[in-house]
Amino acid sequence: MSDVKKVVLAYSGGLDTSVIVKWLQETYNCEVVTFTADIGQGEEVEPARAKAEALGVKEIYIEDLREEFVRDFVYPMFRANTIYEGEYLLGTSIARPLIAKRLIDIANETGADAISHGATGKGNDQVRFELGGYALKPGVKVIAPWREWDLTSREKLMAYCEEHNIPVDFSSKKKKSPYSMDANLLHISYEGGILEDPWAEAEEDMWRWSVSPEAAPDKPTYVELTFEKGDIVAIDGEALKPHEVLEKLNKLGGDNGIGRLDIVENRYVGMKSRGCYETPGGSIMLRAHRAIESLTLDREEAHLKDQLMPKYAEVIYNGYWWSPERRMLQAAIDETQHNVSGVVRMKLYKGNAIVVGRQSEQSLFDESIATFEDDAGAYDQKDAEGFIKLNALRLRIAAGKGRQQS
Amino acid sequence: MSDVKKVVLAYSGGLDTSVIVKWLQETYNCEVVTFTADIGQGEEVEPARAKAEALGVKEIYIEDLREEFVRDFVYPMFRANTIYEGEYLLGTSIARPLIAKRLIDIANETGADAISHGATGKGNDQVRFELGGYALKPGVKVIAPWREWDLTSREKLMAYCEEHNIPVDFSSKKKKSPYSMDANLLHISYEGGILEDPWAEAEEDMWRWSVSPEAAPDKPTYVELTFEKGDIVAIDGEALKPHEVLEKLNKLGGDNGIGRLDIVENRYVGMKSRGCYETPGGSIMLRAHRAIESLTLDREEAHLKDQLMPKYAEVIYNGYWWSPERRMLQAAIDETQHNVSGVVRMKLYKGNAIVVGRQSEQSLFDESIATFEDDAGAYDQKDAEGFIKLNALRLRIAAGKGRQQS
Amino acid sequence: MSDVKKVVLAYSGGLDTSVIVKWLQETYNCEVVTFTADIGQGEEVEPARAKAEALGVKEIYIEDLREEFVRDFVYPMFRANTIYEGEYLLGTSIARPLIAKRLIDIANETGADAISHGATGKGNDQVRFELGGYALKPGVKVIAPWREWDLTSREKLMAYCEEHNIPVDFSSKKKKSPYSMDANLLHISYEGGILEDPWAEAEEDMWRWSVSPEAAPDKPTYVELTFEKGDIVAIDGEALKPHEVLEKLNKLGGDNGIGRLDIVENRYVGMKSRGCYETPGGSIMLRAHRAIESLTLDREEAHLKDQLMPKYAEVIYNGYWWSPERRMLQAAIDETQHNVSGVVRMKLYKGNAIVVGRQSEQSLFDESIATFEDDAGAYDQKDAEGFIKLNALRLRIAAGKGRQQS
Amino acid sequence: MSDVKKVVLAYSGGLDTSVIVKWLQETYNCEVVTFTADIGQGEEVEPARAKAEALGVKEIYIEDLREEFVRDFVYPMFRANTIYEGEYLLGTSIARPLIAKRLIDIANETGADAISHGATGKGNDQVRFELGGYALKPGVKVIAPWREWDLTSREKLMAYCEEHNIPVDFSSKKKKSPYSMDANLLHISYEGGILEDPWAEAEEDMWRWSVSPEAAPDKPTYVELTFEKGDIVAIDGEALKPHEVLEKLNKLGGDNGIGRLDIVENRYVGMKSRGCYETPGGSIMLRAHRAIESLTLDREEAHLKDQLMPKYAEVIYNGYWWSPERRMLQAAIDETQHNVSGVVRMKLYKGNAIVVGRQSEQSLFDESIATFEDDAGAYDQKDAEGFIKLNALRLRIAAGKGRQQS
Repeated sequence: MSDVKKVVLAYSGGLDTSVIVKWLQETYNCEVVTFTADIGQGEEVEPARAKAEALGVKEIYIEDLREEFVRDFVYPMFRANTIYEGEYLLGTSIARPLIAKRLIDIANETGADAISHGATGKGNDQVRFELGGYALKPGVKVIAPWREWDLTSREKLMAYCEEHNIPVDFSSKKKKSPYSMDANLLHISYEGGILEDPWAEAEEDMWRWSVSPEAAPDKPTYVELTFEKGDIVAIDGEALKPHEVLEKLNKLGGDNGIGRLDIVENRYVGMKSRGCYETPGGSIMLRAHRAIESLTLDREEAHLKDQLMPKYAEVIYNGYWWSPERRMLQAAIDETQHNVSGVVRMKLYKGNAIVVGRQSEQSLFDESIATFEDDAGAYDQKDAEGFIKLNALRLRIAAGKGRQQS
Repeated sequence: MSDVKKVVLAYSGGLDTSVIVKWLQETYNCEVVTFTADIGQGEEVEPARAKAEALGVKEIYIEDLREEFVRDFVYPMFRANTIYEGEYLLGTSIARPLIAKRLIDIANETGADAISHGATGKGNDQVRFELGGYALKPGVKVIAPWREWDLTSREKLMAYCEEHNIPVDFSSKKKKSPYSMDANLLHISYEGGILEDPWAEAEEDMWRWSVSPEAAPDKPTYVELTFEKGDIVAIDGEALKPHEVLEKLNKLGGDNGIGRLDIVENRYVGMKSRGCYETPGGSIMLRAHRAIESLTLDREEAHLKDQLMPKYAEVIYNGYWWSPERRMLQAAIDETQHNVSGVVRMKLYKGNAIVVGRQSEQSLFDESIATFEDDAGAYDQKDAEGFIKLNALRLRIAAGKGRQQS
Repeated sequence: MSDVKKVVLAYSGGLDTSVIVKWLQETYNCEVVTFTADIGQGEEVEPARAKAEALGVKEIYIEDLREEFVRDFVYPMFRANTIYEGEYLLGTSIARPLIAKRLIDIANETGADAISHGATGKGNDQVRFELGGYALKPGVKVIAPWREWDLTSREKLMAYCEEHNIPVDFSSKKKKSPYSMDANLLHISYEGGILEDPWAEAEEDMWRWSVSPEAAPDKPTYVELTFEKGDIVAIDGEALKPHEVLEKLNKLGGDNGIGRLDIVENRYVGMKSRGCYETPGGSIMLRAHRAIESLTLDREEAHLKDQLMPKYAEVIYNGYWWSPERRMLQAAIDETQHNVSGVVRMKLYKGNAIVVGRQSEQSLFDESIATFEDDAGAYDQKDAEGFIKLNALRLRIAAGKGRQQS
Repeated sequence: MSDVKKVVLAYSGGLDTSVIVKWLQETYNCEVVTFTADIGQGEEVEPARAKAEALGVKEIYIEDLREEFVRDFVYPMFRANTIYEGEYLLGTSIARPLIAKRLIDIANETGADAISHGATGKGNDQVRFELGGYALKPGVKVIAPWREWDLTSREKLMAYCEEHNIPVDFSSKKKKSPYSMDANLLHISYEGGILEDPWAEAEEDMWRWSVSPEAAPDKPTYVELTFEKGDIVAIDGEALKPHEVLEKLNKLGGDNGIGRLDIVENRYVGMKSRGCYETPGGSIMLRAHRAIESLTLDREEAHLKDQLMPKYAEVIYNGYWWSPERRMLQAAIDETQHNVSGVVRMKLYKGNAIVVGRQSEQSLFDESIATFEDDAGAYDQKDAEGFIKLNALRLRIAAGKGRQQS
């Protein structure tokens, strides 16, 4: 274990990763570099500096990655209308590749030969961090303390802290949230506690980002979202950066009780787990993106996108953002977005994000053809007969030869 | 045109298809058999008898197909979590193959050589009726009056009625709904009128089956749905037939403002059209089915289902229910449903159909493995290292050979 | 029919299209522009000029499109290892979009409002020409004489010629090939005649481009093909342009009895047809391309390509080259070819195109890891245990819960 | 390591697995049950009995599984026209699930708590054996000696034999084949040795089952294969059991130089490897099956099969035969084979397996429609215009709105 000289740790400043700093220093007798990022989790990151210093860390990276996160990860993913297993908007999954990338960047800058993270051995996040790390720096050493150490209970962790003089928040000693949570600009997630029983309804006071539909305002909020090439660039006419868009939509969605989700999902490591998620802004974005695509995408490219999406979602969920297959799928998806521009009007009301209008200069909706009124010859109804006849030909031949049809 | 001897017409009893009866008799000098079915459209079908008789029809078929419709068409489709273009639950599409089948059955029973319908030449329904007809009786003659005649305006239709003594409802003379509508147990649809402008919000008084979320009760309704092999067999413990399930869920959903949809979709005939739909029961069923699958399906079969679904939806939307590719997909889907049994608990509230609990004797959720607490060795976290290492191997080799990873 | 002023005709100089020139002039009372292209069909195109002039054509286009054909159509298609229905290399399909494009270009240059072609109403080519035409010039008028006129037999055509003084080759009068043929640099095809019986073996003297395997040399020919980014750029070290590559491989393949194919295929218009094809160079290219990809592509992108290929082949076969879905798929395919460079060594012998070696500076084959000998720690066999254990987890859980596994 | 009481070993009777018997007895202090199967590898299995007895084994299973192997594994796989990575016929992959199943059956019969095999930690076979084992008996213990022991060189193995009095064949001492080989009724494979250089051509004397194309007879052999529901049931009119079919086709193919393959493939464990294969009978079966399908399958089910095939191949290659996703895919595939019956005539000549005729009572080939001659109205060419017009509609609308088409 002595061959590691310097390790970059994804450091939250919280108890667990603070223990990891000390444990890495002790176990590997190596230098620890901490990396703390603001990706919109809603907590100050600057306090992590003093905590790291107190643990003897000399190289401390604290960064605001919110814009990069939304621009280079969330937005590309939403271009595909990505949903995992029909429900999950991949809020945790999409943040991991950025963290992995920065861990490796910093390892390269500081001459570190290893990276480390605080994810457990049962979850998807270890996979996502490590696949990213290996893909970007193939010779990197990965240290996953939760798979190695014996600090497997809260009590042992506390004992370790006292033994090593790691300051423990009085508050965190007393009332630990019963849930394992993860947050970033796209979502906050909850696992564990009573959620481990899939029949148990989540408690109202678990949710942090949104009011309940019941508690949301009795009057709807209308909002207009402007898209350019598949991405939202303005809200109600005001131009915004990607992360500002998501921040604003999170506020609007949360206020209106939008984006709560309670599912059982299949982890890449082979087990089912139950999770609850709040994705207020993402839930609005998804419907709005589909709406602008409904006007501006060709039918066949839209259908092909829908057929590729589950694979794309799986690739991201499983941690393969930094892979050739993700780039290949992204190339296909991005190719379709050149004309996905226009405005979607939405009504937000007590949990509902309802599309009520959409318009685009790139619209392929042709009122003169679609109309129930006289179309002045734009469409010749007689063409339909030949269309149907030839499409039916293979079925007619088969039936004519006695093939059973039921 | 004189080679048609007898034609079976899908007859609603309304003005348009009454005109068609007369027009067929005149134009083709042939006998007309009428077929009117109750598929849950919410209107009495028996009155069609007198109207047909008045038009001189001798063979009149009036049938209650509600059970068959839900059992053999809606339920199989929902096993696939079928959604067209990310939004549409295929309420119209799924009713057409049953109508086509009965038209052909009746043609065979009555010795008719042709079938006819009242669908226009711009829509999907003509395709669905006719593909079904040809697939089930390859030599059948299809007559689509809207593609043939010159009664292309309301005025001409009325004139035709007067000329031929076809009684026109006073009410239908006065206030014709501005929308083209279609209804069955699964949904009611609206097209035309102001909806032809995709930016225009649908008017509140257009919707017929559901109250608005705003007008729905302020207190949620909880409901428990029991699944057996992928189909709902009981509500709140009460065993129900398929169509009774859907009727009850339509009531529950409609009362709680659930199932409204406003989209632009791509028709098979090549144009985009804007439609509004109310699918109260179906919207609940879809989420509930996903929830029971989330407990009982293996991950890989679930993902494969998700990858096949868009194709399956397209097949149904385009009118190929009676096709080998639909049967092939259905075989794959049905193979997965043997263990999709259990109970889903849902909360219905002002437009929201929220899953709050699910349980199953066939559950693959293993609390002892998934737990954040001590799992007593059920899962060895050290296995994850090898899992990740080998999954990363191809990425590491590529990166080691200098492949760019961004 | 008088609203057409000028029509661009895909003109081969042969009897059928000569008749079409006259028929268009007569029937539509319009000017005809002829377009004749060398796409490697193996016949002189220049003689078409005199024939067109004799028919009174004033604007005559004769072009050598061989390089563009291979570079912009054949090569991109081969990057996907494209095969239709497991066998057919799409030799006819891939030439049509180029012809369609030039017809439209010339229509735009000459101010023509219509295009015309000599394809029949039963085949795929009419679809390919016309879809291309409509996609590139949406208001174009298409005239397909074979669907319109009554010259439905050889005799009527001949009578038309005599009546209109169209000179008929003495040879073509006497011995007409019993087959319908089409040729370009990628292949030559045969349909009709005795081939209409799928049980009948093709006659040896039908084949024109290749010797039979029996008649091929008794000694193998070895050849080395150099790829750059998925395309062959040199043969045996000699740099060649795309069409020169294909010409040379056709010669090599044809001499060695390579590339004959005899299949029953499914046409887009709904019927099955039997066709024989010679694709000597293409058959070599396909195997060679797979071989260089086997070294240089990542596994997952290779598998994804294989999953997308049948759709891509269908898109091209059906005539949708000029479509958003083709561009979308092409974007995905091209994204994978950046590193598909290297050399493949092949042995050609009596119908066999055998890969015997492949090398690449971008190779992902890692001898130090794959070796059966001591790998000096490059691969830790113990990693396999965790890999298998976690991949088995979902299966073990299911079996543990009594799921049947057979 | 003492918790294993009895282990069932896949025992070939060769040196390696004989060492494993002793090593298991020593290391785990447990009883060893040997299982030796004839799956057509071409070696006597009965001699394994004496060898096992000499090693002190008391429960010895020796079985002829050839019929079950072809009937229940090879045939179902060929219904899908299964090819891995465009080339490989999965000869090794498809034998593993049967071995895994019998290992578990025998473990259940003998009360064993573990299974063991002689596959290395770098290959796919360990995965296939173990996934099968876990899927069929979730609590089974798997012992993979090659991942555990330190007998990592030939010398150490020999030393172990001498030390433990394991008799070593004089012949195997002297001349060990330079290749790692695996054989069963479907194929024989070669890896290692000079093949580890992908540029090196395989030596002629490596191949064991087939003559070279050069050495094959100068006269072709014709053969007629009769299919019933997708499976070959007779050769030249003689009814045969599945394994008899494959034995006969192996002879015919091998004699005519058919079925050699030389590829670089992607292993599931993450590396590329180079392998050579002889699959004489399988290569004939594959083409013949495609040929009978070309007559009897509907176009859309054929295309859907082609789209699913790569996934199905991957599932089998990776070892997931005993999985829900394989059963799901199999259900879809088998659904298509009800009418895949008829006769295919093939010409075998110097490496070529050429389809020259096919016929079927279930044929969907309709000569009266496909003909170039007068079709007496079976097909109305005018239908094509409407077919093309509506298929072009979306493209025309897009082009009309200025969308770029190149």
